[in-house]
Amino acid sequence: MDMPASPIRKLVPFAEAAKKKGIKVFHLNIGQPDIETPPAVLEAVRKANIPVLEYSHSAGNESYRKKLVEYYERNGITVTKDQIIVTAGGSEAIQFGFFACLNPGDEVIVPEPFYANYNGFACAAGVTVIPVTSTIESGFALPPIEEFEKKISSRSKAILICNPNNPTGYLYSEQEMRALRGLCLKHDLYLFSDEAYREFAYDGTCMSALQLEGMEQQVVVMDTISKRYSACGARIGAFVTKNKEVYEAAMKFAQARLSPPGLAQLLGEAAVDLPANYFDIPKAEYQTRRDLLVKRLNQIPGVYCPNPGGAFYAIAKLPIDDSDRFCQWLLESFSYEQQTLMLAPATGFYGTPGLGKQEVRLAYVLNTTAINAAMDCLEKALEQYPGKR
Amino acid sequence: MDMPASPIRKLVPFAEAAKKKGIKVFHLNIGQPDIETPPAVLEAVRKANIPVLEYSHSAGNESYRKKLVEYYERNGITVTKDQIIVTAGGSEAIQFGFFACLNPGDEVIVPEPFYANYNGFACAAGVTVIPVTSTIESGFALPPIEEFEKKISSRSKAILICNPNNPTGYLYSEQEMRALRGLCLKHDLYLFSDEAYREFAYDGTCMSALQLEGMEQQVVVMDTISKRYSACGARIGAFVTKNKEVYEAAMKFAQARLSPPGLAQLLGEAAVDLPANYFDIPKAEYQTRRDLLVKRLNQIPGVYCPNPGGAFYAIAKLPIDDSDRFCQWLLESFSYEQQTLMLAPATGFYGTPGLGKQEVRLAYVLNTTAINAAMDCLEKALEQYPGKR
Repeated sequence: MDMPASPIRKLVPFAEAAKKKGIKVFHLNIGQPDIETPPAVLEAVRKANIPVLEYSHSAGNESYRKKLVEYYERNGITVTKDQIIVTAGGSEAIQFGFFACLNPGDEVIVPEPFYANYNGFACAAGVTVIPVTSTIESGFALPPIEEFEKKISSRSKAILICNPNNPTGYLYSEQEMRALRGLCLKHDLYLFSDEAYREFAYDGTCMSALQLEGMEQQVVVMDTISKRYSACGARIGAFVTKNKEVYEAAMKFAQARLSPPGLAQLLGEAAVDLPANYFDIPKAEYQTRRDLLVKRLNQIPGVYCPNPGGAFYAIAKLPIDDSDRFCQWLLESFSYEQQTLMLAPATGFYGTPGLGKQEVRLAYVLNTTAINAAMDCLEKALEQYPGKR
Repeated sequence: MDMPASPIRKLVPFAEAAKKKGIKVFHLNIGQPDIETPPAVLEAVRKANIPVLEYSHSAGNESYRKKLVEYYERNGITVTKDQIIVTAGGSEAIQFGFFACLNPGDEVIVPEPFYANYNGFACAAGVTVIPVTSTIESGFALPPIEEFEKKISSRSKAILICNPNNPTGYLYSEQEMRALRGLCLKHDLYLFSDEAYREFAYDGTCMSALQLEGMEQQVVVMDTISKRYSACGARIGAFVTKNKEVYEAAMKFAQARLSPPGLAQLLGEAAVDLPANYFDIPKAEYQTRRDLLVKRLNQIPGVYCPNPGGAFYAIAKLPIDDSDRFCQWLLESFSYEQQTLMLAPATGFYGTPGLGKQEVRLAYVLNTTAINAAMDCLEKALEQYPGKR
């Protein structure tokens, strides 16, 4: 099966070569947070008494699913334990959604730029991703509903959003969510909502697709603890739907792979019991970083970065000819005080060829000192880059 | 996507109802070993210092892959760390094999009876499973090569075996492996080899498909630590191939799902360092159970069970009309001294409709006392079963 390569990974050899030359590389290219994994959740794994590390229920341990019900309730989302399947990260939740709801040849409409791995999961399911362009000029707001309608065909089966958005950081408003609801009801489409960054909403709150009334049969939420508790390596996510038929279809795939990771489910379960104010510190930290990053970016001549309302990403428009070339050049040919930065060219996040050539994604997963140093590098780099526009 | 339901799971509600009536159910239906997970491997997770539980390399931690190279070397298999992708259990390794090597519409030829979840992975990849029947009369030996050749078409892309076999327990001989080699070379087919039970070979040793000379470009081994170290819940397996192109294709799927479970990789890595004689005790235990189970089965009038050379499964032929009906009856309508047993109807392991109606699979994952009690139940049940033949 012909699968697209990860657009970010292709720069890795250049970063490795830069490091071999003794250059420090600031990694703003990937969504791996530097925030500490809460010690209490790792302690839950350490303290567990496990005579035999058995398969769990294919939907995940019942005790964990019950805890997740509490977690969702606290977030204004009412679900039962039998509407949740614990997955191997958000990745598997997305796969289950595609496999359970779509047939080969079906189309899923996604606002672009979008998380590049959606392409991979679509490819595995034989599904086509149809992009609808959101623009940096609008701050990556939801494209007008008419733009979605232009893309709807008899093959359209679902709309997929990520809220708050990776890669744009855009936080969809309640009004935008309701517009999507109307669209999905009108055209009988599933609404897949990837809510990996739910807690990291700085300007307003994240409305879950599960809160849209009358959409019980159409909404599938793909969730993960990766970013929430800085536990990306645990590989624990959740597939959540109130549609019984979809749930049962997904369960068949869950049963085929037997069970989700066992040790990490203990971690996920303990995470639900973290103090209510747990998110205050990481959220404040991310917000401080965002404010700094966006300010620094917009101070550089010719650079524009809209203020992202959530997640820990920003997309900036740079005065450059080609973001792939520029990102490679940063690693291959540039350094400032023996330092450089690694960015993700936005081209990899667009489905429409040719878009994103002047845009890069920055993940603010580094502390403010590192962000300042990286922005110093970027400022100098844009002065020297031969492909400047 | 229309996915077959798990053939074993459908009996679960009947087992639950029996338990509610106060009947003890001996679970010979699933491959969940009762053997202790080695405390040393769990200790490795407990002792790990993890400030941030980060994504690992998509192929798995380099340190673990290096350890796996040692593990394979000890088993007479020479591979490098760059020929291994650590997976979420054997399940994901099988998925990667199907996705990386096959296209929708392709056919994979599998000796039946076979592990029922192969159907699920084939369904997800849009691939068709073509069964070649092995028979209980031959002890489930590899079907004659001519039988495979009869099934080969322009759509045939791979042969998939499980060695030692689940569900039959059959251990393929070196001669049979060489016959498969000849067939795959002649028809340019991949040889997928699921070697989850490698260490549990009682009569002879398990020859890995990776040991077949001249097959470097065609062999993919799907592996897992689930049964090896009684760590089914860890969800750690491995995809192993010397074919660089196939490896790179599988890596794209590995990258899309980011990384395999992190905590459990520490467990897997520690397992490679268990003492060399670690397998002596579980292997002797399984062999004792096998000997007892097979003896007891063959003592029951009308029952025939060939002696399986490996894994921890046996398929027995019973004097019954229909194994699905019988297995349900055992749970729904039968008990002996307030006890009964749960078996897997072999029908679910055959691709050819109508086969396996007089056969059941028994997993000897219970101690000898329980096996004896379960066989007492089976003996009585066969006296009373209304559908006896």
